[in-house]
Amino acid sequence: MASNRQVWLKSRPNGIPQAENFGIRDGDIPLIAEGEFLVQNHYLSSDPAARGWIADATTYWPRIEIGDTMRAFAVGEIIESRNPRYSTGEKVMGLFGWQEYAAATDKHVNLKIAPRDLPLSLYLGVLGLNGFTAYFGLLDVGLPKAGDTVVVSTAAGAVGSCVGQIAKIKGCRTLGIAGGAEKVRQCLDEFGFDAAIDYKAGIDLDEALRSACPEGVNVYFDNTSGSISDAVLRNLALGARIVICGTASYPSWSPWNMGPRPERHLLVKRSRMQGFLATDFLDRFPEAEVQISQWIKEGRINYREEIHEGLEHAPGSLQRLYKGENTGKFVMRLPVAKTRVNA
Amino acid sequence: MASNRQVWLKSRPNGIPQAENFGIRDGDIPLIAEGEFLVQNHYLSSDPAARGWIADATTYWPRIEIGDTMRAFAVGEIIESRNPRYSTGEKVMGLFGWQEYAAATDKHVNLKIAPRDLPLSLYLGVLGLNGFTAYFGLLDVGLPKAGDTVVVSTAAGAVGSCVGQIAKIKGCRTLGIAGGAEKVRQCLDEFGFDAAIDYKAGIDLDEALRSACPEGVNVYFDNTSGSISDAVLRNLALGARIVICGTASYPSWSPWNMGPRPERHLLVKRSRMQGFLATDFLDRFPEAEVQISQWIKEGRINYREEIHEGLEHAPGSLQRLYKGENTGKFVMRLPVAKTRVNA
Repeated sequence: MASNRQVWLKSRPNGIPQAENFGIRDGDIPLIAEGEFLVQNHYLSSDPAARGWIADATTYWPRIEIGDTMRAFAVGEIIESRNPRYSTGEKVMGLFGWQEYAAATDKHVNLKIAPRDLPLSLYLGVLGLNGFTAYFGLLDVGLPKAGDTVVVSTAAGAVGSCVGQIAKIKGCRTLGIAGGAEKVRQCLDEFGFDAAIDYKAGIDLDEALRSACPEGVNVYFDNTSGSISDAVLRNLALGARIVICGTASYPSWSPWNMGPRPERHLLVKRSRMQGFLATDFLDRFPEAEVQISQWIKEGRINYREEIHEGLEHAPGSLQRLYKGENTGKFVMRLPVAKTRVNA
Repeated sequence: MASNRQVWLKSRPNGIPQAENFGIRDGDIPLIAEGEFLVQNHYLSSDPAARGWIADATTYWPRIEIGDTMRAFAVGEIIESRNPRYSTGEKVMGLFGWQEYAAATDKHVNLKIAPRDLPLSLYLGVLGLNGFTAYFGLLDVGLPKAGDTVVVSTAAGAVGSCVGQIAKIKGCRTLGIAGGAEKVRQCLDEFGFDAAIDYKAGIDLDEALRSACPEGVNVYFDNTSGSISDAVLRNLALGARIVICGTASYPSWSPWNMGPRPERHLLVKRSRMQGFLATDFLDRFPEAEVQISQWIKEGRINYREEIHEGLEHAPGSLQRLYKGENTGKFVMRLPVAKTRVNA
């Protein structure tokens, strides 16, 4: 294979990136410099966070520029190395982009993948950023105690479903908020939530929360912002922790979205609202990987994947995620993975 | 004296309580039951928080009802006791109301006042709830580190001025936001802020903050909410702590006030926003009193008081506070205090 298929940013949307904002091109397989190594990607991830990486002038990472190969998490195998800490044959997860081959350094790697009897694709989901986001966001930011009521928005999603299950393992009562009957079913049947609310069912969410959480909400894992979060805010228990993980209900933050101000609620309920990024806990990723893989093997954590063949699915993936049409972690398998999956 | 002058709630405002919402009456000096003690008030406090106690249907304490004697902090002397833990002659600070005499129990007392060579009125300000609010809000919620930039709104106020000085003692850089040239002067000359901004001076607050805090704001002690807070939010450093202490910029929270949503800022900056009440730290009030009184004696904490003679000043006090017309902690001295001040 002499070329490196890449998905690149062709035009900048304000809002949810659409298929036409991306192009596909054949680049060169990069030559690696001293300290670098060459990763052949097996699986590529599509994540809602990419909206912000593209659209927002100010975000936690430099904005992606027109012409750039799209930033993305991927798992792959090191096929050539000029870095003594990375050996040919090792599997790694990191920011290797929507492409077949990446010249990488330390700073692109999020996790060296220890050999385990689990599918490699999971390192883009429950054993990757989604799972680590759930793990650190819930445990280190949300600080749940046994007996707490934990509410999760986009509860059937890759992060939300993991949050609910970890909360349950920690002895909490879990309530999922999701859109549509099928997702509510998943919350209850597959992800073990104690209760689930379909916010699209034309209900009064405030009232539904009040009756589902008569003692108030101790931890709210917020993947949405917007009216769902406003309703949860009106139902906080004293000393509640709101974990700000994502803002899926808004296609854009330019201009800034308006809403009811939280200050008075936070004051009266002596509660807090805290944003975080899983990558701030990079040093502890191995801890999370060991723990979550154990829970998976014990049957205590379930997950869903939606595996698409080929990077041609990348350009249309973000609109699919924001419409909530996916039914599991959105992963693309590259041809190499077909024959060498999780070798 | 056979009667007990009291200020009571005559009608319920929605917004800032005005003089006409209160009445003054002669009640009886209460008879104390077993476990109670009789406090003769020397000084009464007027606090912005009283707006919420009166107007808000849901707040951290039961709402004050029409006909009730107004809830307020006061300092006084125990003149009769049927409680073995409180002796005649002891001075106490607590919720004794806008009245001359109160029958009190343990639960009304915030602090037993140890004899010190400091004015008794200070126990309603810098050595009372204002100082304790500054102390616990800044140190326990704001978690300032030496070298941090600490921004305070209503910086010349009873709480804000104390926050700035404690932050300075802890090695922080302090920026005060206040309304008007005189308050800015106080921030700089009396309360030792490194810099101060007059938000009423027709400036672009966003720009003023950006240039005053080029590295961003590490701790924001928020007494106002509203547009001042929105501007600070746009200038946070990574990992910032926003301490929600008060919402002075809004006369009412019914209906709920709208504003730019903070979620995206908190996420991108991995920051947090946390509400608190000083009374949640009741067990540690003696610690704060010992520390702040030491700082006062060392000349490291300055304060301002505005002492009015008589409880007749109570009904009009809240409108004065919300207009920012006071030039120090608003305290009323009752006749007894004239002859026995800080005995």
